[in-house]
Amino acid sequence: MTLPMVVPAPHLPPRVRIHEVGARDGLQNEKSTVPTEVKAEFIHRLADAGLTTIEATSFVHPKWVPQLADAEDLFPRVADLPVSLPVLVPNARGLDRALSLGATRVAVFASATESFAKANLNRTVDEALTMFDPVVERAKTEGVHVRGYLSMCFGDPWEGAVPVPQVVRVCKVLLDMGCDELSLGDTIGVATPGHVRNLLTALNEQSVPTDSLGVHFHDTYGQALANTYAALQHGVTTVDASAGGLGGCPFARSATGNLATEDLVWMLRGLGIDTGVDLGRLVATSAWMAGRLGRPSPSRTVRALSHEDDKEQ
Amino acid sequence: MTLPMVVPAPHLPPRVRIHEVGARDGLQNEKSTVPTEVKAEFIHRLADAGLTTIEATSFVHPKWVPQLADAEDLFPRVADLPVSLPVLVPNARGLDRALSLGATRVAVFASATESFAKANLNRTVDEALTMFDPVVERAKTEGVHVRGYLSMCFGDPWEGAVPVPQVVRVCKVLLDMGCDELSLGDTIGVATPGHVRNLLTALNEQSVPTDSLGVHFHDTYGQALANTYAALQHGVTTVDASAGGLGGCPFARSATGNLATEDLVWMLRGLGIDTGVDLGRLVATSAWMAGRLGRPSPSRTVRALSHEDDKEQ
Repeated sequence: MTLPMVVPAPHLPPRVRIHEVGARDGLQNEKSTVPTEVKAEFIHRLADAGLTTIEATSFVHPKWVPQLADAEDLFPRVADLPVSLPVLVPNARGLDRALSLGATRVAVFASATESFAKANLNRTVDEALTMFDPVVERAKTEGVHVRGYLSMCFGDPWEGAVPVPQVVRVCKVLLDMGCDELSLGDTIGVATPGHVRNLLTALNEQSVPTDSLGVHFHDTYGQALANTYAALQHGVTTVDASAGGLGGCPFARSATGNLATEDLVWMLRGLGIDTGVDLGRLVATSAWMAGRLGRPSPSRTVRALSHEDDKEQ
Repeated sequence: MTLPMVVPAPHLPPRVRIHEVGARDGLQNEKSTVPTEVKAEFIHRLADAGLTTIEATSFVHPKWVPQLADAEDLFPRVADLPVSLPVLVPNARGLDRALSLGATRVAVFASATESFAKANLNRTVDEALTMFDPVVERAKTEGVHVRGYLSMCFGDPWEGAVPVPQVVRVCKVLLDMGCDELSLGDTIGVATPGHVRNLLTALNEQSVPTDSLGVHFHDTYGQALANTYAALQHGVTTVDASAGGLGGCPFARSATGNLATEDLVWMLRGLGIDTGVDLGRLVATSAWMAGRLGRPSPSRTVRALSHEDDKEQ
């Protein structure tokens, strides 16, 4: 299999933890609902490929996200895997459901902008934070690790560019509330590397340590990997990605374009940054899932290496 | 139209010259042959979108590249445009043809590896350089600007990783021969940012100035824009790209994956780097060409912004 030559760049972290979101963020945004046993196999295969943090599902009301309505059925099928399996919990009820199944890592989903808080949660930014407060408190009491997703950290489809201080404020509230880590989301994919550096620097200046921050870039305009490189240069060691680029179908108008884990692993491997991921197994997993979804993966690495397999066979 | 917020990163060049290769490198690698009048309109539209260096065609033998067999017919249709119009010349005969039509910029195409020199030119690396020597000399005598393409600067499909000193040696021969600029090609798309920095640094150490260097990345594994960002950080100000990502059909096994000019312009605009390009006009041009080719553009920016237009209409 073709692989990049390893040539480290200066001052990059030796190791990056990939927070794999394909099974949750990816499948949640696919048109078709994937059978529970396929989801379980997907997660097993991701773990087998070396991913150590695999977001498994979401305990939202099934009415909102029918694609993930099988959370209670799915979670026990993967709970024994020797990896971290965070689950999304939108509220106290979701946390109850997750805790009852033994989840040890949860995530809440906040917005940096009023427009998206209104559209996604039907609340103001601060009302949403108030809703999360007891959820995070209870999770921490139970010894559960909490991730805070923050969407629209760079641009918002209604509001345009999002002021950095606005993002910093919500980040600090989430951390003060007890979140163990944040995921800075470029939900509409408009960020560029200078914007990434700018936000990370502003967060540091307001006493937010880099090791509490993950980045979550979308490839809507092809910028995700360049933005990731800028984040690595700043010292970020947690990067969100979606196996096979799931969740952003490039053939649909509503492409959200999650960064493909394979494209990320290719770059990290070339930079000599350890991820623990076996790229061949991961590509085979995403090619298999693409077959289940009946469409090619948007990941360029998956396409290139799958075609290579075709030729070799 | 959605555009990135402008947030410069430190120490980047204020201006980048995009060397647009879609009409030559792009169309040369498309399966279907595009009619001459469509090519001419394409180049006119690219110039109208603000691109200032548009590689127009290739004066190779029509037998080798039938897609560009109309070079004599095409070039006069665009020669009056107020932009630079380099053309590829493989040998003395090609240079004669280009000069007779009034070309003022030409490019030769060398290889950093023996395997590709053999496959592409049926010569050794040094035999190819010997062939180019009188071509470059004559071009310089005629006051013509010469670009030297150097392919396989990072990896080679037969030889694997390409040693940096091997690339540096050929670069120096091309510059000593009289080439005004070089284009460092990652022909199979395997490079990562550390490799890019490494090669650029090695070239500087061997007295090759950065302002004589352009970069030509392929998006085969999704790395082109991250590599470009690394090159910008090194001070590179000439970047090759192909409008709409022409030349690398993501649906074909033989995807070569030229970096899409639109994805590049998005990043440069966000970084506050001047290119002179009107992104809306460029996207409209690539969407139009995609229609002529009967397939969607692989450029993520073209897709996202074309879909935006659909919604607005």
